[in-house]
Amino acid sequence: MPQDQIIKDPSKLLEELENLHPSDIANSLKKIEKHSEDDFFFVLKKLPDDILGEVLLELPENLRENAYSELTIEQLTEAVDELESDDQTDIIQELEEFDEEKAKEIYDGLEAEDQKEIDWLKTYEEDQAGSYMQTELFSANLNETIKASLDRLTEGKARDELENIHQVFIVNDDKKLIASILLEDLIIIDFKKTYAEVLSEYDENRFSPFVVQDKDDIDDVAKKFEKYDLNVVAVVGYQDMLMGRITSDDILDVIEENATEQMYQLAGVDDDFEHEDNLFATAKKRAMWLCLNLGTAILASLVIGIFDETIQAYVALAILMPIVASMGGNAGTQTLAVMVRQLALGNIELEHARDAVKKEVIIALFNGLLFAIIMGVIAWVWFDEKLLGLVIGLSMILNLFSAGFFGASIPLILKKFDIDPAIGSTVLLTTVTDIVGFFSFLMLAKVILL
Amino acid sequence: MPQDQIIKDPSKLLEELENLHPSDIANSLKKIEKHSEDDFFFVLKKLPDDILGEVLLELPENLRENAYSELTIEQLTEAVDELESDDQTDIIQELEEFDEEKAKEIYDGLEAEDQKEIDWLKTYEEDQAGSYMQTELFSANLNETIKASLDRLTEGKARDELENIHQVFIVNDDKKLIASILLEDLIIIDFKKTYAEVLSEYDENRFSPFVVQDKDDIDDVAKKFEKYDLNVVAVVGYQDMLMGRITSDDILDVIEENATEQMYQLAGVDDDFEHEDNLFATAKKRAMWLCLNLGTAILASLVIGIFDETIQAYVALAILMPIVASMGGNAGTQTLAVMVRQLALGNIELEHARDAVKKEVIIALFNGLLFAIIMGVIAWVWFDEKLLGLVIGLSMILNLFSAGFFGASIPLILKKFDIDPAIGSTVLLTTVTDIVGFFSFLMLAKVILL
Repeated sequence: MPQDQIIKDPSKLLEELENLHPSDIANSLKKIEKHSEDDFFFVLKKLPDDILGEVLLELPENLRENAYSELTIEQLTEAVDELESDDQTDIIQELEEFDEEKAKEIYDGLEAEDQKEIDWLKTYEEDQAGSYMQTELFSANLNETIKASLDRLTEGKARDELENIHQVFIVNDDKKLIASILLEDLIIIDFKKTYAEVLSEYDENRFSPFVVQDKDDIDDVAKKFEKYDLNVVAVVGYQDMLMGRITSDDILDVIEENATEQMYQLAGVDDDFEHEDNLFATAKKRAMWLCLNLGTAILASLVIGIFDETIQAYVALAILMPIVASMGGNAGTQTLAVMVRQLALGNIELEHARDAVKKEVIIALFNGLLFAIIMGVIAWVWFDEKLLGLVIGLSMILNLFSAGFFGASIPLILKKFDIDPAIGSTVLLTTVTDIVGFFSFLMLAKVILL
Repeated sequence: MPQDQIIKDPSKLLEELENLHPSDIANSLKKIEKHSEDDFFFVLKKLPDDILGEVLLELPENLRENAYSELTIEQLTEAVDELESDDQTDIIQELEEFDEEKAKEIYDGLEAEDQKEIDWLKTYEEDQAGSYMQTELFSANLNETIKASLDRLTEGKARDELENIHQVFIVNDDKKLIASILLEDLIIIDFKKTYAEVLSEYDENRFSPFVVQDKDDIDDVAKKFEKYDLNVVAVVGYQDMLMGRITSDDILDVIEENATEQMYQLAGVDDDFEHEDNLFATAKKRAMWLCLNLGTAILASLVIGIFDETIQAYVALAILMPIVASMGGNAGTQTLAVMVRQLALGNIELEHARDAVKKEVIIALFNGLLFAIIMGVIAWVWFDEKLLGLVIGLSMILNLFSAGFFGASIPLILKKFDIDPAIGSTVLLTTVTDIVGFFSFLMLAKVILL
């Protein structure tokens, strides 16, 4: 049983290869590379073909690209040849962006059948189900006997072409997907029967397969997995022909990546630029977001600038004003995080938008009142001025209300226009809470205090 | 094949029950409930026992609790009886918090065997593997023939006790888990053999099972699933006895929940309090976080207060100071989101902490310099004062540097002390960036301009 094992010694790693999962080999290589790049390449080149590919896939992108440079075309071709079709396609595509020449030579070195599959899989967009599927699966013709299909399964497994099999997909002569029988059901049926015979003995819905279209969005596929507790879905394409399958381990990765993306978007970070060895590229991408925020901040400062005489007259205002803006920003962020996440999980629908906004506004008024009182008293005591307490109290209610209202509305409006709510919500909201915060506070101060 | 179907008409829903997945029935009920609570209860009571339990599980918590009130003890007992052991335990535990009397009566109405299993599963903490496992699995004794075990499988499936079976777990007479054979391997072996014979014919590692301990943290189990692309793990307990199994669909849910939790923690929101029908409870929990932030904001204002004469002398400072604090806050949030997420995914280890901090500091200095120049020029032009541009420029570099440094260090330090980095990082960081922002700006202004 694979343990969580990381081996930092190159020679020891090579000895233990047989007992380690590719994931652990990759993690060990990561550690080795930090100490010595030479050792890293040394071990890499000695990896047997049948695991080299899998290990490459588990390495972080920067190390994988180093490996592309160091390994020979022969070695890479052998390694890619051993992989399943979806992984082959991923590596070839990545290689093409990195070193087009090398990618072509490796592609040319593969079997014609593999080449055809890669060509096909490459036609899919990054977010389509087709780009996540593998073409390797256990299928059988309606008129085949179970025994005959199991013989093919035995062969396929012996050739390491089939693994992770949980069901047989039954197709007709046009390769159209008819049914799917789980192995747990198949194993207790008489093997001498043909699949057509088996299907005729049961209700037509008994072996209905879970199916997605090859052009479906992978996020919708992931939602189906979660909703129906699936392990595998069949992927069909043109005229419902069986193209491939997607397994739950791929979906696990999709879900993690989506979660990371959402979290990053709320903070103004782009996951695609965060793994660069090139820190300049990362800094540049973050700078774009910071630039937007700078614009927001300057807008807010322009608003403060309108009240320069007010502040001059009463400097306590300059001391207290960041508090109101800050509280608005924090409350707004709470609302935003909840709205964006619940929208993404499909727990809020646009038709119930009004309920969602209403809920956030009520919470906002609760807390607005609470902190209006708290801060009102603090300001009153701090500066010995009752009206200042009133000003900051009123301003707090106004700002927290608008934080709740816009924090809920902005994501819903963006979603309505089919824009990803996570992107841009934060900037728009901060603009609102800062401007409302400073304006309400200083205007109320001008009117009430002066 | 289940489609994404939501039926809003109660009578039509009841007609279509056979063709709908419990998840879709639950979603339809959610819609029906929004229009008429009576219709909701009407349909609920008419659901057949074998799906009532599954539908209840798919409902949101508040509706499920309403159902607990409305349904009779007999109905609930029948429904719970049909569920698998982990789901039975979840419902009983939830019911106990809601209506202890009713929970007891339902528990008493279950079979003794189910009661024993529920008692056992209840002993596990919420975050332990044991609380996620189901005791239903396909196991066989070493000395059993494959044929005999398959007969038991047939019976188990006929009684609806076994489903989602992908392998057979082989145990010895002490119920200790010895091996696990996937159905894809089992189906092509001679059924007349005993399991002991089969195992003796292969290398001892060939059928090594993936195993976790019942007391393992479920997050570690989830990481194993992701790392090794698993479908199922066996759960063992005392003396490696086979206790149950965890399937990938449960792990999908765990991963989604963890992601939601992280995102919320960064924003100061607690997921456990966000689904309340009781908005007051939600508002109160959010208020606790806002209170912390208020404290931070007041601290920052105290810092501003030190420089009240400086501001009085040059009001442009009051207009510009929020910009520096705001940029620091935004840059710090970027760093924080990346650090917290990468730590959670296990991509950063504490021993490489220094590299991570170094990387963030370099990015911070890049952007610090960039925005120092941009804002310096803007301030110079806006207020026609070159030195003001210098002040804000220097302050920007200082604040962005500290945002990057502390944004990276704080999560690492919290992690080192085994505190969840997501909680509290934001507050600590905002404290730093606000105070450093205001202090550096106003102090430099005092020294350079006045």
